[in-house]
Amino acid sequence: MNQLLKYDDITKLFNTIQEEKPLVHHITTYVTATDSANTVLAFGGSPVMADDPNEVEEMVSYANSLVLNIGTLSERRLEAMIKAGRKANELNIPVCLDPVGVGATSFRKEAVKRIIEEVKLTVLKGNMSEIKSIYGLDAKTRGVDSTNHTIDGGVLIARKLALRLECVVAITGSVDVISDGKSVFCIHNGHVLLESVTGTGCMTSSLIGVCLGTGYKPLQCVLTGILTMSISGEHAYKQLKPDEGLGSYRVRLMDAISNITAQYLAGGRVDEIK
Amino acid sequence: MNQLLKYDDITKLFNTIQEEKPLVHHITTYVTATDSANTVLAFGGSPVMADDPNEVEEMVSYANSLVLNIGTLSERRLEAMIKAGRKANELNIPVCLDPVGVGATSFRKEAVKRIIEEVKLTVLKGNMSEIKSIYGLDAKTRGVDSTNHTIDGGVLIARKLALRLECVVAITGSVDVISDGKSVFCIHNGHVLLESVTGTGCMTSSLIGVCLGTGYKPLQCVLTGILTMSISGEHAYKQLKPDEGLGSYRVRLMDAISNITAQYLAGGRVDEIK
Amino acid sequence: MNQLLKYDDITKLFNTIQEEKPLVHHITTYVTATDSANTVLAFGGSPVMADDPNEVEEMVSYANSLVLNIGTLSERRLEAMIKAGRKANELNIPVCLDPVGVGATSFRKEAVKRIIEEVKLTVLKGNMSEIKSIYGLDAKTRGVDSTNHTIDGGVLIARKLALRLECVVAITGSVDVISDGKSVFCIHNGHVLLESVTGTGCMTSSLIGVCLGTGYKPLQCVLTGILTMSISGEHAYKQLKPDEGLGSYRVRLMDAISNITAQYLAGGRVDEIK
Repeated sequence: MNQLLKYDDITKLFNTIQEEKPLVHHITTYVTATDSANTVLAFGGSPVMADDPNEVEEMVSYANSLVLNIGTLSERRLEAMIKAGRKANELNIPVCLDPVGVGATSFRKEAVKRIIEEVKLTVLKGNMSEIKSIYGLDAKTRGVDSTNHTIDGGVLIARKLALRLECVVAITGSVDVISDGKSVFCIHNGHVLLESVTGTGCMTSSLIGVCLGTGYKPLQCVLTGILTMSISGEHAYKQLKPDEGLGSYRVRLMDAISNITAQYLAGGRVDEIK
Repeated sequence: MNQLLKYDDITKLFNTIQEEKPLVHHITTYVTATDSANTVLAFGGSPVMADDPNEVEEMVSYANSLVLNIGTLSERRLEAMIKAGRKANELNIPVCLDPVGVGATSFRKEAVKRIIEEVKLTVLKGNMSEIKSIYGLDAKTRGVDSTNHTIDGGVLIARKLALRLECVVAITGSVDVISDGKSVFCIHNGHVLLESVTGTGCMTSSLIGVCLGTGYKPLQCVLTGILTMSISGEHAYKQLKPDEGLGSYRVRLMDAISNITAQYLAGGRVDEIK
Repeated sequence: MNQLLKYDDITKLFNTIQEEKPLVHHITTYVTATDSANTVLAFGGSPVMADDPNEVEEMVSYANSLVLNIGTLSERRLEAMIKAGRKANELNIPVCLDPVGVGATSFRKEAVKRIIEEVKLTVLKGNMSEIKSIYGLDAKTRGVDSTNHTIDGGVLIARKLALRLECVVAITGSVDVISDGKSVFCIHNGHVLLESVTGTGCMTSSLIGVCLGTGYKPLQCVLTGILTMSISGEHAYKQLKPDEGLGSYRVRLMDAISNITAQYLAGGRVDEIK
C-alpha cells in the first residue's frame, strides 16, 4: 500500500465527495453518456452533460471538474472541448482527457493533438494503444510502435508522457500504470468482465472526474478513481449468480460503485514502482 | 384524494393508454433518450425519437403528443423543437416542455424564451430552479431570486406561471406542486433515490407525454404522470435487497413503472391547496 | 431444421466469433447505441461507434462489418453512412442496413433511397412496414399498400426485394421471414416482450453484424443473428420472477445473449418455405 492510498486519506476524500457533491461537466460520447452520468451519481457527485459550443464555457464555470472524451467525436463537439478546456484552465478547474480510439483515425489524432496544444490537462487516461498513440504524436519521439505492451513499457511511457504534458498519465489494462512524472504506481485489481461492458473506461474517467472535483491531488484522484472501478468490477463478479450474464454484471457493477467504501479501497493491491 | 385522481378515472386513463398506445414524439437529450423510450413502452405507449429539422414536422403529425427536453441542447435540436412544436400546435397535439438546466446558461435561457414565445405549451415541468428561472424570464417580474424554495413559494409561482403561459405548470421536488392556474395540487410521494438516477425527471416528462397522448385533461395527465414516477420510486426501493445499490434500483424502477396499476395510484398522497 | 442451421455449422460460426472477435462499425442512433455496443460485446464481437464524415472511411477500413441504422437520422450522419458504406463496398466489408421508421418521413425515404443507390447492401433488415416502404420506393412497383401483413405477403416481398437488391432481406415480426432471393426461411421463435424494450431491433442488427464479420454466408449470418435474439427473448422471459417487470426483462435479455450457445440455437423453430 502506497502512502497516497492510506485508509484515512481515502476516507477524507470520500467524505469530501459526500459533502461537496462535485459537479462534473462532461463533453462525451452518446454511447456511454447515460452510464457516465449514473456513475457520477452513484459515486456521490453531480453530473452535467453539455456539448454545445454556445454554452460550454458558461457551463464549465459552475463545474468542479471537466471530463473530455473523444468517442463519437464531431467537429462541433471538438470545438466545445477546446472552448470548455481553455475556460477550465483559466478558472483552475481540473481537466481529464479520455482519448478513446485516438490511434484509429487521423481525425482523432488531430483532435487530441489540438486539445493537448490548447488545453492544459490535469489527467490523461487511456489504454496502452491510446497512450502510445499520443506518445508518438510528438515527432521527435521514435520507435514508439516497437515498444511492446508490457508493464515495463507502460511505466516508461507513463512517466515520460507525464513529464512532457506535466499531468498525471494513467494507462489502464489488466495492470494499470499511473504516473505524475516522478512516482509510478501499479494497480493489480480489476476483473476481465469489465472489458465486456461498454463504457467502463469512460465511467472510470467519470470517477476520476468526481475525485478531481474535490480539489485533492491529481495523483490520489486518479488512483482512487481507477481503484474504485477495479474493485467494483471484482465485487460485481462476486455477486453474479450462476444463471446470470453480462446484463446482470453491468447492473451489479453500478451497485458496487454506489456501495464502495474507503475500507474496500484500502484493501486494493497497489504497488509503487521504484 | 382530489377529484381528478379517483380510482375510476385513473382506471379509465390507464385503459385508454393500453388500447390506444399513444405515440409520443420526443426531441430530447442523448443522455436519457434510451430510458425515456423504455419508460414510454413500460407505461403502455409507443415512443418515437426524431430530432432533425428535416423531418420533425412530418413525424410529429403522426404523434399523439410531443415532449421537448433541452438537455444537451444544440442549435439544430432547438430548430427542430420550434418546428415540431409549431406543427403540434397547428394540429392540436399537446406539447410538454422539460427545461433541463435552463438557469445554467444564456443559451438555454434564450432557447426556452424562444420556445415559449413560438410554441403554445400544454405542460411545463421542471424543478424549482428551472421553473423559477423561467418565471424570471419575464422582465416585469421582480424579486424572483428572493423567493425561497418552499412549498408556499412553489404554489405561488406554479399558479402565476400557469396563468401567464396558459398551461399546466409542474414543479417537481420532494413535494411536487402542480397547477393549471386555478387549482393547485401537491404530491407527497416519491423516494430520495430517484435523485441518484439520471433521467428520472426526463422519464417523468415521458410519462406525462403518454398520458397527454390520450386526450385526457392536462391537469389529470400531469398528476398521473408524476404520481406514477413517485410511486414507482417507492416500490423500487421496497424491492431493493440489502446488497444491492443504484444499478438495481434503476432496474426495479423500470419494473415498477411497467407494473403500475390504478390501485397503486389511488393510494397516492395528493392534496389540493385551497 | 434447415441445412443452414445445423448444430455443427452454428458451433463453427460461434467458435469463429470467439476467436476473431469481429469488429463491428456502427453508424446508428443515440437511442440504442449503448445497447447495441453491449450486445456486440455480449455476443463475442467488438463494437466501434463512429459517425463523423471526417473519419468513417478510415474507421470502417479496420472493421469486419458495418451496421447502418437510420434512427435519429441527421444529414451529417447520412453523409457518414454513404461514405462508410462505399468504402466498405470497396474493401468487401459486409454492410447491414436497418431502415428504422423509413416509412414515416420523406427525409428517411430519401435517405434510404440514396443509401440503396450508392451502397451495395449485404443485408437489409426491418419490420414489415419498413420493408414494404422500401419495396415501394421503386416506382415501377404498384399496389404495395394493398399487400396485407401476412406471412405469405412477407415471403413474396422478401424474395422479390432480395432479388432486386441482390442481398439478404429479413422481415422481423412475430414470425421472421428471411430470403436471399432463392431460399426463404421463417423463424417462429421470439417473445412478445421484445417489442416492449426499445432497441431490440437495433440489437438484432448488431448480432447480424457480428456474424457477418466472420465472413460466413450472409443468409446463415442473418438466421443466426435473428435466432439469437429470438431465443434470448424466450430465455429472458423464463428467467423473469413474478414481481419483476420490463427493467429486469431487459437485463435478463442481455444475460441470455451473453449465455447463448449453439445448442440453444439448434433447438430453434426454423422452416424453409418451398
